[in-house]
Amino acid sequence: MTTKTFASDNYAGVHPEVMEALIRANQNHAGSYGADVYTQEAINKFKSFFGSNIEVFFVYNGTGANVLSLQSATQSFNSIICSDLAHINVDESTAPEKFLGCKLVTIPTKDGKIYADQIEARIQRIDDQHHPQAKVISISQSTEYATVYTIEELKAISSVAKKYNLYFHMDGSRISNAAVSLNANFAAFTRDVGVDVLSFGGTKNGMMFGEAIVFLNSKLAENFRFIRKQGMQLHSKMRFISAQFNALLDNDLWRKSASHANNMAKYLETALKGIPGVKLTQKVDANGIFAIMPEGTIEELQKEAHFYIWNERTSEVRLMCAFDTTKDDIDRFIEKLRQLTRV
Amino acid sequence: MTTKTFASDNYAGVHPEVMEALIRANQNHAGSYGADVYTQEAINKFKSFFGSNIEVFFVYNGTGANVLSLQSATQSFNSIICSDLAHINVDESTAPEKFLGCKLVTIPTKDGKIYADQIEARIQRIDDQHHPQAKVISISQSTEYATVYTIEELKAISSVAKKYNLYFHMDGSRISNAAVSLNANFAAFTRDVGVDVLSFGGTKNGMMFGEAIVFLNSKLAENFRFIRKQGMQLHSKMRFISAQFNALLDNDLWRKSASHANNMAKYLETALKGIPGVKLTQKVDANGIFAIMPEGTIEELQKEAHFYIWNERTSEVRLMCAFDTTKDDIDRFIEKLRQLTRV
Amino acid sequence: MTTKTFASDNYAGVHPEVMEALIRANQNHAGSYGADVYTQEAINKFKSFFGSNIEVFFVYNGTGANVLSLQSATQSFNSIICSDLAHINVDESTAPEKFLGCKLVTIPTKDGKIYADQIEARIQRIDDQHHPQAKVISISQSTEYATVYTIEELKAISSVAKKYNLYFHMDGSRISNAAVSLNANFAAFTRDVGVDVLSFGGTKNGMMFGEAIVFLNSKLAENFRFIRKQGMQLHSKMRFISAQFNALLDNDLWRKSASHANNMAKYLETALKGIPGVKLTQKVDANGIFAIMPEGTIEELQKEAHFYIWNERTSEVRLMCAFDTTKDDIDRFIEKLRQLTRV
Amino acid sequence: MTTKTFASDNYAGVHPEVMEALIRANQNHAGSYGADVYTQEAINKFKSFFGSNIEVFFVYNGTGANVLSLQSATQSFNSIICSDLAHINVDESTAPEKFLGCKLVTIPTKDGKIYADQIEARIQRIDDQHHPQAKVISISQSTEYATVYTIEELKAISSVAKKYNLYFHMDGSRISNAAVSLNANFAAFTRDVGVDVLSFGGTKNGMMFGEAIVFLNSKLAENFRFIRKQGMQLHSKMRFISAQFNALLDNDLWRKSASHANNMAKYLETALKGIPGVKLTQKVDANGIFAIMPEGTIEELQKEAHFYIWNERTSEVRLMCAFDTTKDDIDRFIEKLRQLTRV
Repeated sequence: MTTKTFASDNYAGVHPEVMEALIRANQNHAGSYGADVYTQEAINKFKSFFGSNIEVFFVYNGTGANVLSLQSATQSFNSIICSDLAHINVDESTAPEKFLGCKLVTIPTKDGKIYADQIEARIQRIDDQHHPQAKVISISQSTEYATVYTIEELKAISSVAKKYNLYFHMDGSRISNAAVSLNANFAAFTRDVGVDVLSFGGTKNGMMFGEAIVFLNSKLAENFRFIRKQGMQLHSKMRFISAQFNALLDNDLWRKSASHANNMAKYLETALKGIPGVKLTQKVDANGIFAIMPEGTIEELQKEAHFYIWNERTSEVRLMCAFDTTKDDIDRFIEKLRQLTRV
Repeated sequence: MTTKTFASDNYAGVHPEVMEALIRANQNHAGSYGADVYTQEAINKFKSFFGSNIEVFFVYNGTGANVLSLQSATQSFNSIICSDLAHINVDESTAPEKFLGCKLVTIPTKDGKIYADQIEARIQRIDDQHHPQAKVISISQSTEYATVYTIEELKAISSVAKKYNLYFHMDGSRISNAAVSLNANFAAFTRDVGVDVLSFGGTKNGMMFGEAIVFLNSKLAENFRFIRKQGMQLHSKMRFISAQFNALLDNDLWRKSASHANNMAKYLETALKGIPGVKLTQKVDANGIFAIMPEGTIEELQKEAHFYIWNERTSEVRLMCAFDTTKDDIDRFIEKLRQLTRV
Repeated sequence: MTTKTFASDNYAGVHPEVMEALIRANQNHAGSYGADVYTQEAINKFKSFFGSNIEVFFVYNGTGANVLSLQSATQSFNSIICSDLAHINVDESTAPEKFLGCKLVTIPTKDGKIYADQIEARIQRIDDQHHPQAKVISISQSTEYATVYTIEELKAISSVAKKYNLYFHMDGSRISNAAVSLNANFAAFTRDVGVDVLSFGGTKNGMMFGEAIVFLNSKLAENFRFIRKQGMQLHSKMRFISAQFNALLDNDLWRKSASHANNMAKYLETALKGIPGVKLTQKVDANGIFAIMPEGTIEELQKEAHFYIWNERTSEVRLMCAFDTTKDDIDRFIEKLRQLTRV
Repeated sequence: MTTKTFASDNYAGVHPEVMEALIRANQNHAGSYGADVYTQEAINKFKSFFGSNIEVFFVYNGTGANVLSLQSATQSFNSIICSDLAHINVDESTAPEKFLGCKLVTIPTKDGKIYADQIEARIQRIDDQHHPQAKVISISQSTEYATVYTIEELKAISSVAKKYNLYFHMDGSRISNAAVSLNANFAAFTRDVGVDVLSFGGTKNGMMFGEAIVFLNSKLAENFRFIRKQGMQLHSKMRFISAQFNALLDNDLWRKSASHANNMAKYLETALKGIPGVKLTQKVDANGIFAIMPEGTIEELQKEAHFYIWNERTSEVRLMCAFDTTKDDIDRFIEKLRQLTRV
C-alpha cells in the first residue's frame, strides 16, 4: 500500500543521496555557524552556478529565506509588490509585516504571475511621505500555481524594477522545477534578467531542512550576517545544511529530482485529461496540477492519496508531485478516480 | 589525529542513535508541519517527563526557542529580567528586542546565576506607564558559566515571580546537563519549582537541529502556533525534528550523553588542577570549564584543539565537553598543556 | 484676498473658541500626563456622550489614534480588514504594519465604504497557522470619499464582527461631520451599533492638535496607558489637549463647526452642478466633494484656492470644506471656474 | 495662593510670548505638514544657530524626538550606549526597543553623565554576528540629574564615537538650560563637538507641545520624512509647532527662560544649604536640585508644592524649576521647610 500523496512536495522525505551526505558529514568536530569546510564547498558550488561575485547564506526554511531576503532590501517605510497569491502574502502568517514593518501591495493574479504593466501601475505616490514607498518587486518562480515565468516576462519585470529603482526578489522555493521547465541554467533566469536576491529552495526538492539566500546583488548582503542571526535563522551545526546543498548541487541531483517531479506532473496531467469531468485550470509548467474534479469524488480520492482542496466552492484541487512520486502512485490514483467517476 | 575540540558542544556532530532515527523516519510521505506520527510520539514522550497538561512545540534553534517562549509571555511594553551574561542578552543579536519589543533588564552575575533578592530589587516602578513593566524572569539552566541552579535557588526565584505576578522562563539549551548535575528528573527542577515555559535544548546534546518549547503553564501556549509560524520557526518536514527528540528521550540517551559530557568536564577539571598556573574560575557543575591559563600557552593549545578565549585580558578560557569528547582527547590536550608549561 | 483653500480641513486654523480655551488653561502649574482637572473634565464630557462605562485617552494625531486603537485590539499575527482607500492603508506610511506587525486586508471600494458581505468574504482560513488571522474590521466614518455609512450599514458590519469574534474599529477623524450628516448623536452610530474602539477626531474640526481614543469596549483599554506611552503619543502638558476637547464638546461647538462645513459642501455642490463639464463622482454626505473638472481648468483654479487632484488621469479633484469656509470663498471659486469654462 | 510646583518643568504652562505666537499664527489657511511660512521661518532660525548645512524636523514630544533620532542612525541589529538613568532607558516605556529593535547598553551613572573611558569599555565584540553591534552613543544634556557635560567631556565622548564609527546623539530636552549653564551658544557644544543628531527640547522650556530634531550630520536625515510619518510624529497643522519655535528662538526667549529657571535653582540651592538636615546630592548645573530631605518633612512639604521623591529609601527628592518659578514660590517653600524642621 502506498503512502505517497499529492499533498505537497514537503510531504516527501529526504532524497537518499542527501541522507548519505548527512551521514558523511557526521564525523569529527566542525566549526559552528558556517566556519566549516562543507559550508565553504557549498558556497563555491553556488558560485559555480551563479558567478563568483555573489554572496550566499543558508537559513532554515522558506519563510525565513523570503523574509530575510526582503529585509536586506527594504527599510520599514517601504512596500513590496507581489501577487495576491504570493506565499509571502498568504502563507507566512504576518512574518513579513512584523519583521520588516513593510506593506505588501498585492496584484490579483489568475495564473500565479504578475506582469510588468500591472506592477508599474501599482508604483504610486513616489516620494510622498504619507504613503508606503515601493522598493521591491517579489515574484515566485515557479509560482504558487506551478506556472513558470518566461525569461521575457522576467526581463519585462526587471525593466520596471530598474526604471523605478526597485529591487527584484525571487521566491525560488521551487526554483529547480522552474529551471527544468525553462530548460535553462539558474543564472539565465535570475542573475541574467536582473534578479537582486533569490530564495533558493532546498527542502521541497529533497532536502531535510535548509534554504539558501543568494545575493546576486552583493551589496544587499552587506549586513546580512547580522540580519540572519537576529532573524533566528542562523544554524549552529551549519555543516548539516551545507552538506545537503552539496549533495543537491552535485551530479545534477537538483535537476534529476525536479525533472522527475515535473515529468510526473505531466504524466498525471495527461491521465487526468482522459477523465470526463476533470477540468485543468492552470497550465502545467512545473510539478503541480490544478484541476476541478468531478462532483463527489474528492473525499474518496483523498483516502487513496492525500491532496489539498484549493477552492471548496468550485471543487478545484491542487495535486503536487515530488522527487519520489512514481508512475504507480499516479496510476493507482487515476484508477481510483476512474472508478469513482464510472458510477 | 583528533579533530575534537573544546570550543562548543555545537562543534560536535550528531549522535549515532539520533542519525539512525533520522534514517528510520525517512520513508514514505508524512503530513507536514507536525501532522505526523513522529511528532505525536515525541509530544507524548515529553508528557511522560513533564506531565500530561503541558503543551510542546518544536522549533529550529535556541534563539528561536528563547525568543518565541518569551513572546508567549510578554506584551511589547514589558521587560524581562535576566543575567547580564544571559544568552538572550549577549548572544542572540537583538532578536529579543526586535521580535518582542521588550527591554532586557540585566543583573550583573559572577557565577552565571541571578538570585531571588537581586531579582526582586530590579522589579521597579510597577504600574508606572513611563517605565518598562517587568513580566518575565529568565534564567539559563545550566548557566552560561556551566553552573547549575539548585532546586532551592529555583524555588526562591519562583517565589519572587509569583509574588509579583511574573512568568518564569528557563533557557534550557543545556537542560540535560543540568538534570544530570542535579541528579533530578526534568520535572523536579522545572514544573515542580514553578517554571512556566522552558526552552528544551536538543542540538547541544547530540541532535542535528531542533529545540523544544515546553509550556508547563499551558495557557501561555494558547496562540503559540501562530507565534511560531510568524516567528519563521515552523518546519515543514517536522518529522525530522520529532524523530530526533524521540531518539534523545528514548532509552535515556539524553541522560547518557549529558552524563558523559559532564563526566568529561570533571575529568578535565581534575587534570587541570594538577597543572601549575591553571586557575579554575567557576564551579564545574555541568559540561564546561572556565579557567585562567598559564601565560603564553593559549595560542599553541588552540592549535591542538580549538577553544574560545573568554577574557582576553585575564587569559580566561572556556572549555566545553560534548557527548563525544573522549578521555583521549583530554589526555592529549593536557599533555600538550604540560609541555607548554614545562618550559 | 482670501487664503482659504479647499485643500483639506487641516489647512484651516484653530477655532476661536478653542483658542480661548487654550488661553484659559494656561495658568498655574498643572499635573502632567493627564493628572489635571481639564483632562478629568474632558473625560467626563466624553462619558456624557458615550456612556459612563467607556475609557478615553488623548493622543496627538489621527495616525496615532488609529494605530494605537488597533494595537489594543490585535496581536501581531492578526489581520485588519479595511477598504483599499482607508487612511490606515494609504496615508499612514507603514505605521500600522511596523507598529502592529499585522496585515491590512483590503477591499476595493467605489464609494469609500466596505460592506458586510464583502467583509465576510475576506474572512478566510480561520485558525490556519500559516495565514494572518482576521481580528478587526476598520472603517472610516465619514469615509475618505466624504460619504457616510448609514446606521443600517454599520449594524450589518457589526453583525459580521460579532459572528466571527472580530473587533470593530471606527476611524472617526471626521466623526463630527458624520454625526451631523446622520443627524444622530455620537453613541447612536458607534456604541449602539457595536463599535468597540473609536478614533475621535479633533484636529480636522477646529482643534490645534489632539485626537481621542474612545474605548466603547472598555476591556480593550486595559493596558492602553502603556501602549500610548510606548507609542510616543503621551503628551506631558496634557491639559492643552484636554482643554481643546472641552471647548469642542461644550455648547455644541463640534456640531456647529461640522454642520457649517457640511453645509458649505452642499452649497459648493449645488454651485458646481450648475457648471457645464463638472461631474460629481461621489455622494456629498459630509464636508467633501469629489468631482471631475472641465478640461484645462484645474491649474488656474488652484491658483485661486488650493485643492488636491485626486486622479490625474480623469481630472477628478477633491474639494474639502472646513469650519471656516465661507460662502464668499465658494462664490469666488465658482466665479473663477465659470470664467475658465466660459472661454 | 500659589499652585507652582517643583515637580517638573512640564507642570509649567506656556510662556506668554509663545502663546502670543500661536494666536498670531492662527489666521487664514496654511499648507499642512510643514508646507507653510512659519515652518520655513523656524527652520531658518535653527540654521542661524547651528549652521546652514543642517536638517530640522519638528515632532510632538521628547520620546518621539529621541526614538526617531535614534532610528535615523541605527539598524535593528545595533545597540545604543547610554546611562542607566537615561530618559530613553527608564522613562520612555520600551519605545526604543519596540520601534528600533535595538538594545540599550547601559552604564551605571552617579552624576547623570557617562564618560569616554566607560563608553569605550562597553564597545564589545565588534563584527560578531551574535552580539548587538554598538552604533550610537546617546547622552542627555543637561542630564537627568540636571548636571551639564563640559565641552571637554563632550569632545572626549565624540572622540570615542569617531574612533569606533559610532553616531553621537544628544537628548536635549533641556538643552537651553545646558546652554545657559555652559554660557555657550548651541553650536559650541553640539555641532562643534561632533554631535550627529540632537533632540532639541521645546516643551520643557515654555512651549505647549513640540520638539525639534536637528540633524547636524545631514546625511542621517535622508529618509527622515518617512521615518517621522511612520513614527506617528508628523503634525498636520505644523504651523502651530513652528510658530512656537519662532517665538522661543526670537529675542533670546529660550535663553531668558532657561536662565531664569537655572537661576531659580541656584536660589533654591542656596536656601536649602542653610537648612540643617538637607543634603544636596548632585551639583546644581541647570534647573534641577537633588537633595536628601530631613526626616519626616517630605509629605507635608508636598502639600505646599508638589515634587517627586527620587529615592524613597534615602528620602532623596528632585526639585525642578521652570521658566515661571518665582522667588516667592521658593521663599514660601523654604519657609515651610524651616517650620517643619524647627519642631
